[in-house]
Amino acid sequence: MIGAMVEQGAFEQGTAPGVLLARGVCRALDGLGFVSVCEYPVTRNLRVDVLALGPRGEVWIVECKSSLADFRADQKWQGYLPWCDRFFWAVGTDFPRAVLPEGSGLFLADSYGAELVQTAPEDKLGAARRKALVLGVAQTAARRLRRFSDPSAQI
Amino acid sequence: MIGAMVEQGAFEQGTAPGVLLARGVCRALDGLGFVSVCEYPVTRNLRVDVLALGPRGEVWIVECKSSLADFRADQKWQGYLPWCDRFFWAVGTDFPRAVLPEGSGLFLADSYGAELVQTAPEDKLGAARRKALVLGVAQTAARRLRRFSDPSAQI
Repeated sequence: MIGAMVEQGAFEQGTAPGVLLARGVCRALDGLGFVSVCEYPVTRNLRVDVLALGPRGEVWIVECKSSLADFRADQKWQGYLPWCDRFFWAVGTDFPRAVLPEGSGLFLADSYGAELVQTAPEDKLGAARRKALVLGVAQTAARRLRRFSDPSAQI
Repeated sequence: MIGAMVEQGAFEQGTAPGVLLARGVCRALDGLGFVSVCEYPVTRNLRVDVLALGPRGEVWIVECKSSLADFRADQKWQGYLPWCDRFFWAVGTDFPRAVLPEGSGLFLADSYGAELVQTAPEDKLGAARRKALVLGVAQTAARRLRRFSDPSAQI
């Protein structure tokens, strides 16, 4: 459940309900020892909601769906599978879970946190792609961090 | 030269002169296509001023010295060499450069920017150590970024 104050703050920043679920998911991933980056472009035209890195470089992708309409509008999700070891959905408790494809993992989420209720089967990345993804996360996260820590820089 | 307003702002945040040089160095690294992370712990007891990653995973370390006393107090710098492909000093224009050891690179820096005046010789990292460093930068940068983007989270 999204508290009214959080919702107001979130929409002031132009965030959609899916982004609020992503916040909850990232908090759950923190607790699982995974670091996470939101809105991560795995390739030029493919941006995932949450990309997470585990302690040994495991790569998880979590797509956040705030409603059935949001889920049905996603034509791209199968394109995410080759870019991770495990693929998860994150939905609210009121989402009709029966429509989700089998063989994915599941987080039940709200804007405050999330619970991992189904671990996805593993389909291991090749070494070269994992290496490129880890370097990409390092570059993206470091660049975004620079924008916070040195807002006057031309980045 | 450090402008008075910047200096005041910096000291309000508890930053030392070396940190101001690091800001300039990071801006120069941006321009060279390197992402950078400040105060990066390469091992448990060894924290470098700036660790930078190049487009193909090149690892540079830059140590920032605001004064001769600051340089002379550093007993640890040789311990940084096994953790990078190239090692650089960053100093202000008034620093007595003759005291710097040969075989290092050099940035001339202030709090607004820096110029790469001497590229360090390359001493290439092994593959396993590079892999661990890139993963470590991804984890550190993503974790620090989370603290900015979700300040209420327990990270």
